Amino acid sequence: MKAVRLHGYHQMPVVEEVAEPTVQGPLDVVVRVGGAGVCRTDLHIVEGQWAEAMGIALPYTLGHENAGWVHEAGSAVTSVRAGDTVILHPTPTCGLCRACRIGQDMHCADSAFPGLSRDGGMAAFLLTSERACVKLDPRTRPEDVAALADAGITAYHAVRKAIPLLHPGTTCVVIGAGGLGHIGIQCLAALTATRIVVVDRNPDALKLAEQLGAHAGVVADGRQVDAVKDLTDGRGAEVVLDFVAEQGAEQDGFAMTARAGSYYVIGYGGTVRIPTLDIISTERNLVGNIVGTYNDLAELMVLAQAGKVTLHTRTYPLEAAVDALRDLDAGRVRGRAILVP
Amino acid sequence: MKAVRLHGYHQMPVVEEVAEPTVQGPLDVVVRVGGAGVCRTDLHIVEGQWAEAMGIALPYTLGHENAGWVHEAGSAVTSVRAGDTVILHPTPTCGLCRACRIGQDMHCADSAFPGLSRDGGMAAFLLTSERACVKLDPRTRPEDVAALADAGITAYHAVRKAIPLLHPGTTCVVIGAGGLGHIGIQCLAALTATRIVVVDRNPDALKLAEQLGAHAGVVADGRQVDAVKDLTDGRGAEVVLDFVAEQGAEQDGFAMTARAGSYYVIGYGGTVRIPTLDIISTERNLVGNIVGTYNDLAELMVLAQAGKVTLHTRTYPLEAAVDALRDLDAGRVRGRAILVP
Amino acid sequence: MKAVRLHGYHQMPVVEEVAEPTVQGPLDVVVRVGGAGVCRTDLHIVEGQWAEAMGIALPYTLGHENAGWVHEAGSAVTSVRAGDTVILHPTPTCGLCRACRIGQDMHCADSAFPGLSRDGGMAAFLLTSERACVKLDPRTRPEDVAALADAGITAYHAVRKAIPLLHPGTTCVVIGAGGLGHIGIQCLAALTATRIVVVDRNPDALKLAEQLGAHAGVVADGRQVDAVKDLTDGRGAEVVLDFVAEQGAEQDGFAMTARAGSYYVIGYGGTVRIPTLDIISTERNLVGNIVGTYNDLAELMVLAQAGKVTLHTRTYPLEAAVDALRDLDAGRVRGRAILVP
Amino acid sequence: MKAVRLHGYHQMPVVEEVAEPTVQGPLDVVVRVGGAGVCRTDLHIVEGQWAEAMGIALPYTLGHENAGWVHEAGSAVTSVRAGDTVILHPTPTCGLCRACRIGQDMHCADSAFPGLSRDGGMAAFLLTSERACVKLDPRTRPEDVAALADAGITAYHAVRKAIPLLHPGTTCVVIGAGGLGHIGIQCLAALTATRIVVVDRNPDALKLAEQLGAHAGVVADGRQVDAVKDLTDGRGAEVVLDFVAEQGAEQDGFAMTARAGSYYVIGYGGTVRIPTLDIISTERNLVGNIVGTYNDLAELMVLAQAGKVTLHTRTYPLEAAVDALRDLDAGRVRGRAILVP
Ligand SMILES: [Zn+2]
Ligand SMILES: [Zn+2]
Ligand SMILES: [Zn+2]
Ligand SMILES: [Zn+2]
Ligand SMILES: [Zn+2]
Ligand SMILES: [Zn+2]
Ligand SMILES: [Zn+2]
Ligand SMILES: [Zn+2]
Ligand SMILES: [Zn+2]
Ligand SMILES: [Zn+2]
Repeated sequence: MKAVRLHGYHQMPVVEEVAEPTVQGPLDVVVRVGGAGVCRTDLHIVEGQWAEAMGIALPYTLGHENAGWVHEAGSAVTSVRAGDTVILHPTPTCGLCRACRIGQDMHCADSAFPGLSRDGGMAAFLLTSERACVKLDPRTRPEDVAALADAGITAYHAVRKAIPLLHPGTTCVVIGAGGLGHIGIQCLAALTATRIVVVDRNPDALKLAEQLGAHAGVVADGRQVDAVKDLTDGRGAEVVLDFVAEQGAEQDGFAMTARAGSYYVIGYGGTVRIPTLDIISTERNLVGNIVGTYNDLAELMVLAQAGKVTLHTRTYPLEAAVDALRDLDAGRVRGRAILVP
Repeated sequence: MKAVRLHGYHQMPVVEEVAEPTVQGPLDVVVRVGGAGVCRTDLHIVEGQWAEAMGIALPYTLGHENAGWVHEAGSAVTSVRAGDTVILHPTPTCGLCRACRIGQDMHCADSAFPGLSRDGGMAAFLLTSERACVKLDPRTRPEDVAALADAGITAYHAVRKAIPLLHPGTTCVVIGAGGLGHIGIQCLAALTATRIVVVDRNPDALKLAEQLGAHAGVVADGRQVDAVKDLTDGRGAEVVLDFVAEQGAEQDGFAMTARAGSYYVIGYGGTVRIPTLDIISTERNLVGNIVGTYNDLAELMVLAQAGKVTLHTRTYPLEAAVDALRDLDAGRVRGRAILVP
Repeated sequence: MKAVRLHGYHQMPVVEEVAEPTVQGPLDVVVRVGGAGVCRTDLHIVEGQWAEAMGIALPYTLGHENAGWVHEAGSAVTSVRAGDTVILHPTPTCGLCRACRIGQDMHCADSAFPGLSRDGGMAAFLLTSERACVKLDPRTRPEDVAALADAGITAYHAVRKAIPLLHPGTTCVVIGAGGLGHIGIQCLAALTATRIVVVDRNPDALKLAEQLGAHAGVVADGRQVDAVKDLTDGRGAEVVLDFVAEQGAEQDGFAMTARAGSYYVIGYGGTVRIPTLDIISTERNLVGNIVGTYNDLAELMVLAQAGKVTLHTRTYPLEAAVDALRDLDAGRVRGRAILVP
Repeated sequence: MKAVRLHGYHQMPVVEEVAEPTVQGPLDVVVRVGGAGVCRTDLHIVEGQWAEAMGIALPYTLGHENAGWVHEAGSAVTSVRAGDTVILHPTPTCGLCRACRIGQDMHCADSAFPGLSRDGGMAAFLLTSERACVKLDPRTRPEDVAALADAGITAYHAVRKAIPLLHPGTTCVVIGAGGLGHIGIQCLAALTATRIVVVDRNPDALKLAEQLGAHAGVVADGRQVDAVKDLTDGRGAEVVLDFVAEQGAEQDGFAMTARAGSYYVIGYGGTVRIPTLDIISTERNLVGNIVGTYNDLAELMVLAQAGKVTLHTRTYPLEAAVDALRDLDAGRVRGRAILVP
């Protein structure tokens, strides 16, 4: 089958032939990929940012955002069967550790992360497990929803954690109205009555944001912290969701956060530098966020099927994976790029 | 009356005569001070760390940790009267803003902070308000409990916030077994069944910590992060309570925190420097903490009266305030120094 | 001034002349009434249901749902002044007890309940306190929002408590689409993405409910429990909000609740009879609800000003209070009846 | 093997020979039973109370409270192997449904309940599944801990849910100091600083309760509601944990609950009859409780291994199962009866 393979850091992956994966264990599932999202993390992988954390030998297949159809299921699998339309939680998990047993799939003590720690889903087929499969209405087109498997779940997870802080009368800042941010805005609008203020360098992204439910847009032109303060009577926002967290956004995000407020770090790449006096004197929090739970993904699919979250995507054939990565890197993608094998 | 007054930054305060405070408004209360705690924050004030945040004109009276007896009460005061024994929440608050109405006294939109933003309680009398008074059993000696008004409430507040994270099987690291830390350890032992690991430079402080309920002690000799990892099978602690947060503790504290764990910043003086990748890849949190709520103080007094929190204090006459500050700065105080007017 | 006074149980109140209230204490506020809602509780008062609980001597003035303008303020009042437009939390509270200090105004240890425990607001003027005043945009017409002061806050309070249970994919049943229910439906639609199923005897009320955001309506014709089960694949609803809780609704409501679900009792008049085996075998909860907090009311006013909660009201002159009560009793009021002095 | 089999309702089970269970599916585990607790639910099963809910064909083997050693494990089992000492969560669960994925094992959509819905563990061997096994220190004697598998987990589950309500200064009433109650008292003492008031008919049980951490005991002699009111300044208890919930306790329990408090139903057999006015006017809750989660059991084992929860047990040979049931029914068992095969 065709797969998008990384042969070395700091160089683009190549599309080449590899053997199809097959079911190895009784709980394995092989999925025929219908859509594979292209993520900023793929660029970070190419740059080597995840090399140390994941320690995987090259070459391997990228792709951690997938939907498709069950192709083959292991002998102990009971909840899905061949032909079922599924979207995949990014991590096949053990189901037995404490994290799994409280639903914190992303902290499973014995999980894999296809596309980061082993072969991923920018390919015709992907090996995952029963626990990763969210069954969908058979009429769903996988390419239409694939981006929810990682961009979507990550945005939803952060928003869901913030809901208790976002009662009417609060302000929530969203930094970055791109692939994740444009989903986060819709989740906020569907699940809260907070005022949504979006910060982005790109005025066009702000226009899209307002169509999706944002109440105000702020161009990140250097005055963005003051602009947010002005919009909040000088107080800052109760919650800041930072989908960028690099190139200065990580300092802005904390600075935009109100007394007793919470700064959610979702993007990455930068470094926060904060005097502990500033953290304690205003009792602010920094909240880490990574992917989300299986239930997050299942709930998000309910929102999607109700039309409350719609994706802005642009499809590329699998063979054009490098074009998609280049477009993303150059800021030429509105919403999310999706590879279709 | 005698009062401990700061005349300039980077120089010790002086004990001098000033006019007694009197009730101005209908909700004011003047308290005859029975005990005034000496806090690391007083040293930080002298160093000028709070000059910008508080913007108070010198000279003024230090002291933000007080207990005593009601001396005079305003015309609209109903819940206390002259002669009542009271411990004082550090901030007289408005009772009308949203923060006050959810019990977050320390975030009141219209409060004062005696000892930081106006004349404090290292004096014979202190002006506060009805809402700050926690009524005590008349047999209580104010000098025995004064340290609970700031050191105690701050430690209790952080512990109480952490309780939902500290189920049996978890580990909680306490960095710093001094004035606040030795109360925090007792609160943890009273309110949770977590394993308590204490980190301090001073082996004597660790001995006291174990008498107060700590299960393990780690000398901060440069190997403390590894030592905590060793005690937790390499995972780190679910919660780290950092009562120091300067001189490197603020980096250690985050490094000691487990995946999905929370690092509570309570001390201050240092600067955290953390790549956002490290925050998100393990989904860790940094949690700010400042003083505590009135209810925190009231609950802590219940623990104290039940003998579950006992203070290690050393009393000084008010006139010896500078000695007490010097002893604290030099690390010569076990527990808390208390001025008795 | 004119006031609606109850002279005996089981007989309608009369509109008669009484003396205007005046400020007595430093925190008192006298409000000129702009609108006074007519509530099912007023009928229950007339029936004597509250006689024992409140123990008030007759005659007294009814009315516990008010908005208007500040007429006179006590000497210690700082947050409102004469002329301000305000909506009133139903209970003037002490601000000092534990309940007040955690924002649970309705559990204040030292509060009054005008209209139930002392003279209420079906009159030209009402005596309340500073802590009960929520300041409004001066352009607001009190008669347009008065119903939010009790019907609104009660519905909002119950919905807000239920939010953590109402993630996407859940079902929330609303029993009773009348004065409270029609606000509850709008709050659910504004604050959650749950599926809203409304149960009412009146098909017209169900039509209004669907315009306000309900996803399905069930006529209470005796088959309502089965109908809800059918809509939920036999499971029942995760949350049932029962705005009736009498005449059998209180048995239906529990029966409609899913395993591990919660039945919110908001209306009253009936008696629940449930084998403890049924409570434990499915681990269901019964949740009491009474009025709401000051912050609930303030948040609800944000929703109202954003147009997310709109009231269906019918105004009557104060002199026609008995007509309004009769119309309510006979089921002739859609939404809420409002007296305008 | 020998097993305790129920052949008809309203008659005692018999000990007879049956075939040993064997592994059927890849995730099955057969455990050699080391201890099987005897529970009031076994008496209720004999009385036919569970006949309708479980719908199981007679005869079958009783026993839902077990610890022992893994005897045989299915082909896909990875976390335990033959010889491991284990305590068993009462329900083998699917691991795939929403309830399993949030850790609510007892609400699994596809689970069994050995001893209620299929053959249980009053036998030499028991068929369960990998997900039900909590691995123990190999030195643990199963008969010493078996009672934690149901009595323990149930008491712990209820206490853990109540922790957020039980801050210092509150009162928690425990009704019934028997098999579950004596564990509940120890959990309360280990995890909270609440005041524990125990209500029981038996003065001896109250003595044991005080040794285990209760602060006050009340003999249930008809004046128990008043006695609890007297101990709480007329207010009642913030939390009541009712381990009886029959024969009038279910009315007492609610009556003992303070305004805004919560009545936890854990025992069963009676019927609550409460006017909805009483539920709403004081905003009280009734909270259902059933067994507990796998994590509850794992946490409880941590408390047990730390010596914070100790069991009072009396062992019987498996053949004496009927004697044990009769002793329990007659109130002759202090703590818990354990069958040892
Ligand atoms: Zn990604
Ligand atoms: Zn796992
Ligand atoms: Zn201090
Ligand atoms: Zn305030
Ligand atoms: Zn310092
Ligand atoms: Zn009403
Ligand atoms: Zn109060
Ligand atoms: Zn049992
Ligand atoms: Zn399940
Ligand atoms: Zn019974």
